[in-house]
Amino acid sequence: MSFKKQLNWRYATKRMNGQKVDETKFQNILDAIQLAPSSMGLQPFSVLVIKDPETRKKMAPVCYNQPQITEADAILVFAAWNNITKESVNTYISNIADARNAPLESLEGFKQNILGLVGGKTQEELVTWSAKQAYIALGFGLFAAAIEEVDTTPMEGFNPEGLDEVLQLDKKGLKSLALLAVGHRDAENDYLNGAVKVRRSADDFFIHI
Amino acid sequence: MSFKKQLNWRYATKRMNGQKVDETKFQNILDAIQLAPSSMGLQPFSVLVIKDPETRKKMAPVCYNQPQITEADAILVFAAWNNITKESVNTYISNIADARNAPLESLEGFKQNILGLVGGKTQEELVTWSAKQAYIALGFGLFAAAIEEVDTTPMEGFNPEGLDEVLQLDKKGLKSLALLAVGHRDAENDYLNGAVKVRRSADDFFIHI
Repeated sequence: MSFKKQLNWRYATKRMNGQKVDETKFQNILDAIQLAPSSMGLQPFSVLVIKDPETRKKMAPVCYNQPQITEADAILVFAAWNNITKESVNTYISNIADARNAPLESLEGFKQNILGLVGGKTQEELVTWSAKQAYIALGFGLFAAAIEEVDTTPMEGFNPEGLDEVLQLDKKGLKSLALLAVGHRDAENDYLNGAVKVRRSADDFFIHI
Repeated sequence: MSFKKQLNWRYATKRMNGQKVDETKFQNILDAIQLAPSSMGLQPFSVLVIKDPETRKKMAPVCYNQPQITEADAILVFAAWNNITKESVNTYISNIADARNAPLESLEGFKQNILGLVGGKTQEELVTWSAKQAYIALGFGLFAAAIEEVDTTPMEGFNPEGLDEVLQLDKKGLKSLALLAVGHRDAENDYLNGAVKVRRSADDFFIHI
């Protein structure tokens, strides 16, 4: 299967037509996001899946009223953990022990590695680190959607504090990072539909050693 | 094609066997990385493709002698631009004008948007922003490799200043962010080969609204 054809098919869709996304395809996109790797495997972020029209209406103003917010079938909000607690690391280590049927003691060294890495960072550095992990997952969502011929728009153009407020993310221990609108293009009204894709040339972008 | 099967097949390969990666597959992985979207489309990072054995030997100590550095067929180094200059924005705008056969004047508003976004950030914030864009591309590389049944290891465990020094990235206006080892697993000697994949449960990871 030619994923390159699909990656050329995708583009940052500016207008969507409100059409529902097939449920299996949508689930496959979520599964890809969940399967994305992260540093140490910790997955220090969550993904809000927002289909509720009322919530999206409330989100629109803090997203500068970009039409995809309401025209997409769903908005995914990638949100970093505000804090990486010892408890969340313990939970992760227990999950590994359960999944792999391994004694907890055998994971003690790995646990200390994580705690050492986390303990050596300021809260701001931790959010940046978590954000980078979340962006790998954002990439997985974009790639999976392209294969499924589902349109997406990755969006950083919103007021993060405003969105955190609307979605009450602080109470969930989260901080919004990026959005992914998921839906279907409004081919007629989207000026970017069919536009030639612009990327830096391979000679400029890659440095071969 | 079941990309989920492939995403379950992949894992952070700890030992590789030195085998070459098929050239077409390798090129497809690079193409996916180049096709990854970025904020505003700017692609403010570069990717070093390191196959040279001598260079990799020099990299090993600053990468804590992790075996993949020399056992992989190639090490990709994702590196952020140190600086986003007006010149690089101008080059990007010219590329769009050329690719889409559009007059430069029609892109003036877009150009001012980019310059406004960039101008409002400190150098450190710009590197963080560029890093996030690079991690989307890292995700694309991981996903594409999984489809091609090529093994990869995303790596943050290295001394970035040391690596910048070895690769003389400062002279290139770059700063190392993350590595992607690309090769084939040493199935016999890799303790992680065949281990159950551990991910947060969908109930915990996704918040449906």
